[in-house]
Amino acid sequence: MTLAIGVDVGGTKVAAGVVDERGRILVKLKRSTPAASPLRTEQAIAEVVTDLLATQEVAAIGLGAAGFVDGDRATMLFAPNLAWRGEPLKRRVEERLGRTVLVENDANASAWAEVRYGAARGYRDVMFVAVGTGIGAAIIIGGELYRGRWGIAGEPGHVRVVPAGRLCGCGNRGCWEQYASGNALVAEARDFARRTPAGASRLLQLGGGTPEGISGPEITQAANEGDPAALRCFRIVGGWLGQGLADLAAILDPACFVIGGGVSEAGDLLLDPARAAFDRALTGRGHRPVAEVKAAQLGEDAGIVGAAGLAIEAASQTQATPKTEASHNA
Amino acid sequence: MTLAIGVDVGGTKVAAGVVDERGRILVKLKRSTPAASPLRTEQAIAEVVTDLLATQEVAAIGLGAAGFVDGDRATMLFAPNLAWRGEPLKRRVEERLGRTVLVENDANASAWAEVRYGAARGYRDVMFVAVGTGIGAAIIIGGELYRGRWGIAGEPGHVRVVPAGRLCGCGNRGCWEQYASGNALVAEARDFARRTPAGASRLLQLGGGTPEGISGPEITQAANEGDPAALRCFRIVGGWLGQGLADLAAILDPACFVIGGGVSEAGDLLLDPARAAFDRALTGRGHRPVAEVKAAQLGEDAGIVGAAGLAIEAASQTQATPKTEASHNA
Repeated sequence: MTLAIGVDVGGTKVAAGVVDERGRILVKLKRSTPAASPLRTEQAIAEVVTDLLATQEVAAIGLGAAGFVDGDRATMLFAPNLAWRGEPLKRRVEERLGRTVLVENDANASAWAEVRYGAARGYRDVMFVAVGTGIGAAIIIGGELYRGRWGIAGEPGHVRVVPAGRLCGCGNRGCWEQYASGNALVAEARDFARRTPAGASRLLQLGGGTPEGISGPEITQAANEGDPAALRCFRIVGGWLGQGLADLAAILDPACFVIGGGVSEAGDLLLDPARAAFDRALTGRGHRPVAEVKAAQLGEDAGIVGAAGLAIEAASQTQATPKTEASHNA
Repeated sequence: MTLAIGVDVGGTKVAAGVVDERGRILVKLKRSTPAASPLRTEQAIAEVVTDLLATQEVAAIGLGAAGFVDGDRATMLFAPNLAWRGEPLKRRVEERLGRTVLVENDANASAWAEVRYGAARGYRDVMFVAVGTGIGAAIIIGGELYRGRWGIAGEPGHVRVVPAGRLCGCGNRGCWEQYASGNALVAEARDFARRTPAGASRLLQLGGGTPEGISGPEITQAANEGDPAALRCFRIVGGWLGQGLADLAAILDPACFVIGGGVSEAGDLLLDPARAAFDRALTGRGHRPVAEVKAAQLGEDAGIVGAAGLAIEAASQTQATPKTEASHNA
């Protein structure tokens, strides 16, 4: 069976795995991303791949990278949450490894995996939204990844949802990812704890006594316990998420949205308020079919599985998306 | 030469023409839209077609209608600016005329005409934005109209750009078309004239002395004369337009935007501030290729020409978009 290495390069961690042709991960490694230095990021990628190559023979290597990948899938044009600015990532990593790698946007890789093995199987027109540190996204049209004219379609995280709103890593203000991401969830909880410590006692307790100690897992834990302050944070962030999905539905009219990324692992804590806001905000509601809002099925592994799968497909000269499995509409 | 009738059904007027295979309009008629009554709207459409049929033999009839057309292109699911709610427009008009008609979204019809004969010739990935009473839009992907899962893709006019903003005809608040349309331009000018009559003296003069007398043509005339108040209105509306184009570029990464609709006939009065705002607002600017923002070439006739052309294509059993002319990228 053909194996490949998939690497998911995010703003906070580099995760990599050896993946088989059925999308199963055989070995997995993870380390933090030295995001401020392109050189050290490339070094970290090469190291994790080298470590995996020592365990297995593989036919191909794919990188899913959190940033704007150019049309040739070679250069990181820009990354809101990493230091890439016109970085020739493909060439740099190939030089370090001495072999070919495929480069793809991380959300595109995850979306491909969800189409092939996960929540988007059988759908032809899908919007994948990964709620993590920021918001990654991918557009599937006719069962295939839609990359746009220059390779960088699918960045709704940088749509302005609040004029003169919160400052974003991309340099603009009011971007959606400042309101509907993991960062937003944590900011909301810390802000609440600062302003209303009495109401945030459980969050503060889990965070070691200070607002700065509160991060995503603590908020999810408190919300699962029924803590009102934590539930409020999910309602706010889920509300922004659902509003944005309604906006995307107005533009793209997909059959379904698949919500992935780290924050989506909180499940209905995030998706219930998102679905409620989506239903309230959708233009023409009551007079149109409504897209499903589905939870991703592959969790945090989607990026690894997708990057590996795309690399295998590219290596075997077949098409970049699964014609067969996505050939009928839902 | 094969002829067809194209009808452009907007929120304020029904315009129709006999169109030849090269997209030339031979005869044209226009009347106001009885927008509050689906029955009377259908009657107006049938009358204008009947009048044209009395002058020419035609092979096909196409309607471009301002609203959400379903996937079967038969039913008007919803229309922000007309009374259609689940209206079986195709059947109703066919019953009145006793012959087949094709129904398409009005902006889709205009975009098709711009791809075939106008500003979008030779481009494969295009976002068409019609700035009229409201905002209509169409997405061209790979040279073909993209209709979404249920036929209603391409409604960015109903993306929320201001939380709790201005009330829209769709029932929501803060929709883009309340800030970047002809209605918005007029509202801006009237509001300015009410608050600062001294500064709006030229606008008031052209409007017959009252803010309510100021409409689009007066604002364009005053702006062309260099009137600061009128120019300010175009700067504000153009600024909202450009911001929205930047948001759409983040999502769709098109090769170009084509700006049509009645307000676009003001030319650079609208497009200069739109381009400036687009350049300021585009995420990743300075690190990515930038889509062109082009003026439409067919003016207010695009909807007629497109509806007729799509009807001819459908009648001749060929594909719905011009493969040959759009087969290379720009």
